[in-house]
Amino acid sequence: MVLSKSRNYPCMFCGNETGRSHGVFMVGSNSGAPRMSARTQSLSLPTALRDASRTVDEMLESILPAPHGLQARVHEAMRYATFAGGKRLRPFLVLSAAKLFGVAPARAARVAAAIEVLHTYSLVHDDLPCMDDDDLRRGRPTTHIAFDEMTAVLAGDALLTIAFEILARPETHSSAEVRSALVLRLAEAAGSNGMIGGQMIDMQAGQNAFGSDEIIHLQRLKTGQLFEFSCEAGAILGQAKQEDRDRLRSYARDMGLVFQITDDLLDVTSTAEKTGKAVGKDKEQGKATLVAIMGIDGARAEAEKLARRASATLAPYGNAAPELCELPLYLLDRES
Amino acid sequence: MVLSKSRNYPCMFCGNETGRSHGVFMVGSNSGAPRMSARTQSLSLPTALRDASRTVDEMLESILPAPHGLQARVHEAMRYATFAGGKRLRPFLVLSAAKLFGVAPARAARVAAAIEVLHTYSLVHDDLPCMDDDDLRRGRPTTHIAFDEMTAVLAGDALLTIAFEILARPETHSSAEVRSALVLRLAEAAGSNGMIGGQMIDMQAGQNAFGSDEIIHLQRLKTGQLFEFSCEAGAILGQAKQEDRDRLRSYARDMGLVFQITDDLLDVTSTAEKTGKAVGKDKEQGKATLVAIMGIDGARAEAEKLARRASATLAPYGNAAPELCELPLYLLDRES
Repeated sequence: MVLSKSRNYPCMFCGNETGRSHGVFMVGSNSGAPRMSARTQSLSLPTALRDASRTVDEMLESILPAPHGLQARVHEAMRYATFAGGKRLRPFLVLSAAKLFGVAPARAARVAAAIEVLHTYSLVHDDLPCMDDDDLRRGRPTTHIAFDEMTAVLAGDALLTIAFEILARPETHSSAEVRSALVLRLAEAAGSNGMIGGQMIDMQAGQNAFGSDEIIHLQRLKTGQLFEFSCEAGAILGQAKQEDRDRLRSYARDMGLVFQITDDLLDVTSTAEKTGKAVGKDKEQGKATLVAIMGIDGARAEAEKLARRASATLAPYGNAAPELCELPLYLLDRES
Repeated sequence: MVLSKSRNYPCMFCGNETGRSHGVFMVGSNSGAPRMSARTQSLSLPTALRDASRTVDEMLESILPAPHGLQARVHEAMRYATFAGGKRLRPFLVLSAAKLFGVAPARAARVAAAIEVLHTYSLVHDDLPCMDDDDLRRGRPTTHIAFDEMTAVLAGDALLTIAFEILARPETHSSAEVRSALVLRLAEAAGSNGMIGGQMIDMQAGQNAFGSDEIIHLQRLKTGQLFEFSCEAGAILGQAKQEDRDRLRSYARDMGLVFQITDDLLDVTSTAEKTGKAVGKDKEQGKATLVAIMGIDGARAEAEKLARRASATLAPYGNAAPELCELPLYLLDRES
């Protein structure tokens, strides 16, 4: 294995001139094609991710209803699903993007909480027996296993609903225009032509002979739309120009696809112990993925190209949020 | 059977002085206690209900996505569930309450569409095998029977999501404050301390020895909250005072309980042909209802008392929306 200094490190576009956490290495892969690794270099990113995770967890703790009344069981299930040790990647995106536009952290944290509960709802419903039928999620029994199917359906519904409640409350932003815009964009991103549409396509994917265009489309709906919302939300909160909103979405689109490709790679190459969920399911279920079509090395090369482009998109913001520039590259080496 | 002119007709509080559709009769019940009937008198109400139904159906037709793309199946299921010949009672409430405050009908129709798709989502999920396990709804196969469970879960999720999208779009109201307030109230009404909480309690009701207080509480959450939102939405759209919002909610609280008691009565006394859904299920599932506790005549008497109080609440608005005053009484005699 040969390590060599890269000339393509995305963060060169971000204007970080300190040199710290700038090094990047080309790692020879088995196929001979060099690939990038940032694992040992992006020391600041794991810290930033942990900070974001702590921030959103504190907000979620105060926002989610404490179990009470005859309906306590649904509150318990909402909390069980939410506090399951997730990566909090979408909250991290909201918080980081909001920094670009000088948004008060407390406001950004509320939007971060909203996107996290919405993401959590999608996991709870996707895990149901009639969907992906997963018993394990983030290393723990899924919500319908820990509780029961009925409670899981209701807890998912309640998490989806509270996401909009959080956004609409005046504490989220003093401008009702901003609050309405957040609600509208989240509903579009999560709806039948967004995340749910992607899930519908994915559920049928095993029965179809999808090519890479269809797979990219479905992933941009299924996982990409929430990433796009998360990044754009920073610009909405900052009452930034449409140009900024578009730029953040463009970044998120590429970054989201990197996330998905690396997720599919983990399904092929990793273990349940590392990922905290069942692996090898795509092949077992006959699901079309970019990894299946392009091969492991081809998919990895595509992810690297997208990661570089994502980081380059943020060049106009200089070094205002270096962790956003680093993230796509960081994802290339994730283990869970 | 003795018919006699009643002195208690609720609409006497509404200031309608024309005398038309004002007559009401006491109908002797088998137990000897007189009860009110408005069936043959409220000629205007069925017309108003049909008009509201047509208005909201036109709006729903234009708002719900036409089936398209690889995700077409979820769009089809959303439409299948929505266009199933429902009573459109909640849209009627929105449209009628909005009239009290001089709201433009096109705006009210959008809010009416939002509450109807939200109500429809709740039916789709409630019918699932892990919930009420109903094969029949409004005389047709339920969504998970006509499609499949996975599609029904996703279609329900999508209907819930689009409800908030509809409210947040600028076409609903030029004031973002109004749009945000609508989103917030709907999320509260539909959430884990509203409708979903009620459903959670109801799902456990068979296992508990509920008294009438608990049943009233659960019904006020499960069905009452959406009625409260529907009526209050008219005041929100009209940017009316808090006093008006409270008054409309108070009306809806009583009216909603009348609706629920008569629903439970139908479950005991009617047939599947008339109601378009399975009957006798409450007893079969050991569910506590006010009818089971108070008996048929006791429950009917309670419903009549509540119906009178609901209509009286609207006295301050004179004859601005006589159909709202008539509704609670009309419900006493519904057959489906």
